Amino acid sequence: MIACNFGGPLILKIKRMSTLVKDFNAYREKMNAVILEQNNRVMKRLWNLDTNTYEEGALGQKTKEMLGLVASMVLRCDDCIKYHLGKCFELGVSTEELYEVFAVANIVGGTIVIPHTRRAAEYWEALATEGKM
Amino acid sequence: MIACNFGGPLILKIKRMSTLVKDFNAYREKMNAVILEQNNRVMKRLWNLDTNTYEEGALGQKTKEMLGLVASMVLRCDDCIKYHLGKCFELGVSTEELYEVFAVANIVGGTIVIPHTRRAAEYWEALATEGKM
Amino acid sequence: MIACNFGGPLILKIKRMSTLVKDFNAYREKMNAVILEQNNRVMKRLWNLDTNTYEEGALGQKTKEMLGLVASMVLRCDDCIKYHLGKCFELGVSTEELYEVFAVANIVGGTIVIPHTRRAAEYWEALATEGKM
Amino acid sequence: MIACNFGGPLILKIKRMSTLVKDFNAYREKMNAVILEQNNRVMKRLWNLDTNTYEEGALGQKTKEMLGLVASMVLRCDDCIKYHLGKCFELGVSTEELYEVFAVANIVGGTIVIPHTRRAAEYWEALATEGKM
Amino acid sequence: MIACNFGGPLILKIKRMSTLVKDFNAYREKMNAVILEQNNRVMKRLWNLDTNTYEEGALGQKTKEMLGLVASMVLRCDDCIKYHLGKCFELGVSTEELYEVFAVANIVGGTIVIPHTRRAAEYWEALATEGKM
Amino acid sequence: MIACNFGGPLILKIKRMSTLVKDFNAYREKMNAVILEQNNRVMKRLWNLDTNTYEEGALGQKTKEMLGLVASMVLRCDDCIKYHLGKCFELGVSTEELYEVFAVANIVGGTIVIPHTRRAAEYWEALATEGKM
Repeated sequence: MIACNFGGPLILKIKRMSTLVKDFNAYREKMNAVILEQNNRVMKRLWNLDTNTYEEGALGQKTKEMLGLVASMVLRCDDCIKYHLGKCFELGVSTEELYEVFAVANIVGGTIVIPHTRRAAEYWEALATEGKM
Repeated sequence: MIACNFGGPLILKIKRMSTLVKDFNAYREKMNAVILEQNNRVMKRLWNLDTNTYEEGALGQKTKEMLGLVASMVLRCDDCIKYHLGKCFELGVSTEELYEVFAVANIVGGTIVIPHTRRAAEYWEALATEGKM
Repeated sequence: MIACNFGGPLILKIKRMSTLVKDFNAYREKMNAVILEQNNRVMKRLWNLDTNTYEEGALGQKTKEMLGLVASMVLRCDDCIKYHLGKCFELGVSTEELYEVFAVANIVGGTIVIPHTRRAAEYWEALATEGKM
Repeated sequence: MIACNFGGPLILKIKRMSTLVKDFNAYREKMNAVILEQNNRVMKRLWNLDTNTYEEGALGQKTKEMLGLVASMVLRCDDCIKYHLGKCFELGVSTEELYEVFAVANIVGGTIVIPHTRRAAEYWEALATEGKM
Repeated sequence: MIACNFGGPLILKIKRMSTLVKDFNAYREKMNAVILEQNNRVMKRLWNLDTNTYEEGALGQKTKEMLGLVASMVLRCDDCIKYHLGKCFELGVSTEELYEVFAVANIVGGTIVIPHTRRAAEYWEALATEGKM
Repeated sequence: MIACNFGGPLILKIKRMSTLVKDFNAYREKMNAVILEQNNRVMKRLWNLDTNTYEEGALGQKTKEMLGLVASMVLRCDDCIKYHLGKCFELGVSTEELYEVFAVANIVGGTIVIPHTRRAAEYWEALATEGKM
């Protein structure tokens, strides 16, 4: 027999600690597939172009991903932030460097960026934690 | 005895597949009632005006709802998107037409519109699924 | 043996009625601590400055919090709105006054502010309800 | 015979010092007339509603105009800022109070609000100067 | 001998009445050339894609240009508005239809869209006037 | 006797070619002085903090200025863009690198960033031209 007396917030908390990265990626991939299936040419080409934008060029990939991150932060797009955090993590951006990107975003975009910074900080921790699992 | 081993993400997934439209409408109606109860004259008149805006005129209702949808997408307001998707669905906008609206929104507003397009695509599928139930 | 037949939406509803304020504050405090721990000087000073901004001056605290609220509403930052609603509640802003702030936000920022107004109205009720518990 | 050796910047400077307020109002009135002539019912009613929003209510007119100003600043709408500055000037907002509104706008909206604050400060001076003429 | 006693505002007015469309197009073309000369592949492909977006498809060109216009209005991009107004003019959008697009933009985006609507109305008149010359 | 037959657009063109950078800096400095004179503590501290944000740290100054630039571009703040372009120019960002920043801004922020990219490209040329004078 099981107690089952957990409420909404607890579930949410468990979810956050353990599957934040996995859930984001799963939903993203599932819905990207749904969209691409419709064969809208503009959408498909825009997505290809999006990938090209962050490729090594005169600027390195790491710099470009930080540019994508700061742009996503000031525009306050949580999912975009998560995506670029994932890339920054893979490319070896240090936590100190990351927080300097956060600082630029918060100064340029103001205190409305703070709630997004909280979720970004949480996701950054999840990247480290889930990566170890 | 019950296994009860569903976690947060699973619940979320079930919810999304079956009650996305119903939940949106229920919350919207409940809170609209709370707001209108306060009798703020500006709020009430703005909401009436909002309804008038999308009535048949020199432009047809379908065109106007697509205008409302693309505006909501570039401004990245998920609930506004859901509302206009519901109207577009009722007025017979085809999936191919819809994705051309999505394309305009993504080109004008950039890749920050993509996460909102994902949720819009999911809601569009829910409109078809829940409509059939 | 336990029924355990509650679904996602129900859990969500329970959460909303009873712990909306508590949850917001708990998450906010937890993540603020995570961010401040990193000792980024710009972030720390910006947050201090944020506090100073709303202190009594030529304008009273209540007016300043309403300014912070309307700014957060037109910029559509739900967490910022919650924060300023909490302060407005503490400082004795009346529901009638609050809805006049809502009206300015909706007129200046348009109907895309409506979904945020719904969540603001819900949080305002939660402040009264949870305050009594 | 006339020297005529003034260039673009000089002309611009002269214009700014003496006719900033007059020019803004003249253009605004001229174009409002053009728009209202088209008899679009939604536009006309929205504009009436806009006027009602700032009328004395539970909150005083001065507070409401400051709310309109801070909202316009964080949304970075120079003409909206000018309009509300004009109203604040008429209603006796002091320069010290005004700069506290500026401070809220700059903290909430970030350093991107600074260029608009510069133009707001210039217009505020013009209101005093042109008012005296 | 020449009087030369015209001031800044007068020059501005003359410019507006007679060369608004020509000036916009001239500057746009000049700077597009400067940008394309740099051969940045992402920029070039994005611009091609931008053109494709408004081509006849499931939705007609006229509808797509109105979608582009309303999106540009709520995002308050004057130059984007001018571009789509030019296209709407070419495609035979009527003034009554245009003002219904303006209405959607003003309701969705709020009164901060009004100053951009003023400039849009002025440019629409210039399209008719300059077209006749 | 002097011809004096230059019209508005011509003046504008001359201004743009020769004094774009000088004019921007002159106006910026003049109005910053006006604002700082008012001794608003929050404004003063925010501006100090703004300066600190771009100082050498875990990330180099050049990277930070590019972060500031891309953030300013997606938020479509022309004066902020000019400021960061000036800094990027001083710090030796190459034109090829710059256009990769432009590309990120245009992809993330969409085609509404294009008009700001045009003005940025013009200002970048002015920095080179005026620097030589």
